[in-house]
Amino acid sequence: MSAPRAKKVAPAKPASDLAKSPLAPKTIAGLPPLAGIRLSTGAAGVRYKDRTDVLLAVMAPETQVAGVFTKSKTSSAPVEWCRAQLKRGTARALVVNSGNANAFTGKAGEAGARDVAESTGAVVGCDAREVFMASTGVIGEPLPASRITRILGSLAQAGAAGGWRAAAEAIMTTDTYPKLATAAAQIDGHKVTINGIAKGSGMIAPDMATMLAFVFTDAALPAAVLQDMLSSGVKTSFNAITVDSDTSTSDTLLLFATGKGAHHPTIAKSNDKRLNDFRRKLDEVLLDLALQVVRDGEGAQKLIQVDVTGAESDESARRIALSIANSPLVKTAIAGSDANWGRVVMAVGKAGEPADRDKLRISFGNQVVAENGERAARYDEAAATRAVSGLEVMIGVDLGLGRGKARVWTCDLTEGYIRINGSYRS
Amino acid sequence: MSAPRAKKVAPAKPASDLAKSPLAPKTIAGLPPLAGIRLSTGAAGVRYKDRTDVLLAVMAPETQVAGVFTKSKTSSAPVEWCRAQLKRGTARALVVNSGNANAFTGKAGEAGARDVAESTGAVVGCDAREVFMASTGVIGEPLPASRITRILGSLAQAGAAGGWRAAAEAIMTTDTYPKLATAAAQIDGHKVTINGIAKGSGMIAPDMATMLAFVFTDAALPAAVLQDMLSSGVKTSFNAITVDSDTSTSDTLLLFATGKGAHHPTIAKSNDKRLNDFRRKLDEVLLDLALQVVRDGEGAQKLIQVDVTGAESDESARRIALSIANSPLVKTAIAGSDANWGRVVMAVGKAGEPADRDKLRISFGNQVVAENGERAARYDEAAATRAVSGLEVMIGVDLGLGRGKARVWTCDLTEGYIRINGSYRS
Repeated sequence: MSAPRAKKVAPAKPASDLAKSPLAPKTIAGLPPLAGIRLSTGAAGVRYKDRTDVLLAVMAPETQVAGVFTKSKTSSAPVEWCRAQLKRGTARALVVNSGNANAFTGKAGEAGARDVAESTGAVVGCDAREVFMASTGVIGEPLPASRITRILGSLAQAGAAGGWRAAAEAIMTTDTYPKLATAAAQIDGHKVTINGIAKGSGMIAPDMATMLAFVFTDAALPAAVLQDMLSSGVKTSFNAITVDSDTSTSDTLLLFATGKGAHHPTIAKSNDKRLNDFRRKLDEVLLDLALQVVRDGEGAQKLIQVDVTGAESDESARRIALSIANSPLVKTAIAGSDANWGRVVMAVGKAGEPADRDKLRISFGNQVVAENGERAARYDEAAATRAVSGLEVMIGVDLGLGRGKARVWTCDLTEGYIRINGSYRS
Repeated sequence: MSAPRAKKVAPAKPASDLAKSPLAPKTIAGLPPLAGIRLSTGAAGVRYKDRTDVLLAVMAPETQVAGVFTKSKTSSAPVEWCRAQLKRGTARALVVNSGNANAFTGKAGEAGARDVAESTGAVVGCDAREVFMASTGVIGEPLPASRITRILGSLAQAGAAGGWRAAAEAIMTTDTYPKLATAAAQIDGHKVTINGIAKGSGMIAPDMATMLAFVFTDAALPAAVLQDMLSSGVKTSFNAITVDSDTSTSDTLLLFATGKGAHHPTIAKSNDKRLNDFRRKLDEVLLDLALQVVRDGEGAQKLIQVDVTGAESDESARRIALSIANSPLVKTAIAGSDANWGRVVMAVGKAGEPADRDKLRISFGNQVVAENGERAARYDEAAATRAVSGLEVMIGVDLGLGRGKARVWTCDLTEGYIRINGSYRS
């Protein structure tokens, strides 16, 4: 491939006039270059005008890949494409476009995905089956694949070792800030790097929230090991966040390992102790990105952490935590800084999981508000209100039944959510 | 009991300044007197000032009763009281208060419920276990039972054969209109009457939506027959509506039969064909009340009917229908008169039920918008938009897999919902 070359692209602009989330990180992470990856972005005009909307990442030969996808029964053509290629375990390129989700687009959608893969394979010099892809944006409109394929050649030529922020910006839809995270990890004393970008649950006027995340490392780890770590790490990060309980047709999380960083020993099993630090750092990057997604939830004004303990099992705790995190009544109460613990009682009760009213203990921050089947004797309305009035709110529920626990995050439900999602598409 | 006597009570007022729902029925049903029932209402000052908040219904000896309650694991003291008494099958009185739900109130809450039952038994002259009750309002605050019990004597004296509208008004919280329905039915050629009242999913500033409904008939039907018909009828009425997917601790539906109407033959089994007309009319009353509840959903501007057909089973169809009806993205799209069928695809896909993208057929009203895995060839944006722009919207989904079907109703999700539920309790 030719050497990196500067390419002039229009700066990314948000798809709408949304104000930046008050929960946005104070600073945007600066990501170091990563051996074996070259990035470039371009403005293909898929849907948006005057902004970048295509990301191409070209990776070293034998790059290993793992993935986790939406569980939707109506998943998009790119999701189906990726699932089919994943079993081979190797990747040479990733193409992401914003503006069109290529979902519910029938045979034409499948053909569009194949076009993109084959064109990318041609410019990169790899098998189309080593090309991974994701699309986010409007649903049900045919993907204008040729707008993407016609710029792939120049994107491949423009690939550079840096450009992470531009990459994160190119995949935004109604995100109000780009989402990046990085960590350094040690594998048996050798330093490797993990870089990740994500886009969140913004709608592009007028479509569904889609979560995309791409994580890259220069470590040399086989696909099976990556998959184990990713499937495990997602449980406490991307699968522990919810904005509105709606599941996209396009959710995609991919993890690539180029093997072009420090030469560490070969590691064949995911339970190898020499992976402990890498796994911890990977989990941190995944959680960092996931929380950035929640903090940019549509209309979000507050980040809500829900901790459930004392459940009969972890799975039971998780169901109860999600019942709370997805309850419109809990989320609107927090939006209004209302310490309305009765709604938490309600959300526990409706989860259908084992619960004993008289053993429940509910707290906001460090304020116990309910226990022994009634309002806590030491209940302090002013303190409880303060506990739900900040930008970050912690809801704690102890069921007093067993040792099961779970933690999930969500955001509050505000009029902003309705405005963003209730306005017409055009 | 003494003869009915006029009692001066303050008129019912809504608990807040909510404007009447645009979906309210044009006229409020006038309910005929019903033999064996005497109603009275009073202003006990449970929470509200200057309005009625207690309903007492005194029923003839040997009145039969059936009930269906919330499935919440944190159900209220009145729900637990009613469940315990229901197996006896007879009722002499119903006491309902608004303003306080007596939920999550611990041992004091149980004692309060018992106080109300015993006081009612004393003034009516019956066993406390023949007293049924419901409470709706704020959660977690001790029930001021004495405010209720001290007016029970005068309520019992004031009982009259009419007063249905006043009864429906006394149980309102943030309902914007009283909910009443009536039907005449024939049992083996004898005319009987069915009267029902309900309160809906309004919040009393600031508590959870609670649905209460009480249906009365002068027919002579045993408790077991009533229970069969009620459990069946609720499936396609109260259990087929959703406002926000949140389940109250207090949902209560009771059916009473006084046996004081026309002398029809004894009917011992619910599958007796002589009950066909009664069952049909009972189902009509239940559905009428349930739809009045949805039409008064918090912030509701549109009634949405979701019909799912062609599923692998009725239960599968029901899960998919509820996934659509509970989807915030579908509900906000309808609020914005946006024919955003992509969100319906999403909601089908997230339900976790068998679905084949390429066999799905989605329509708004009589406009087919998607089929064969993509936007319908005959798609007409203007017509689709018109189909979602009225006060009543029909969403149709055919899965093309089997014969399972389900119909549910919901309302749209508007900024009004957020305003009602996001404001502070005080």
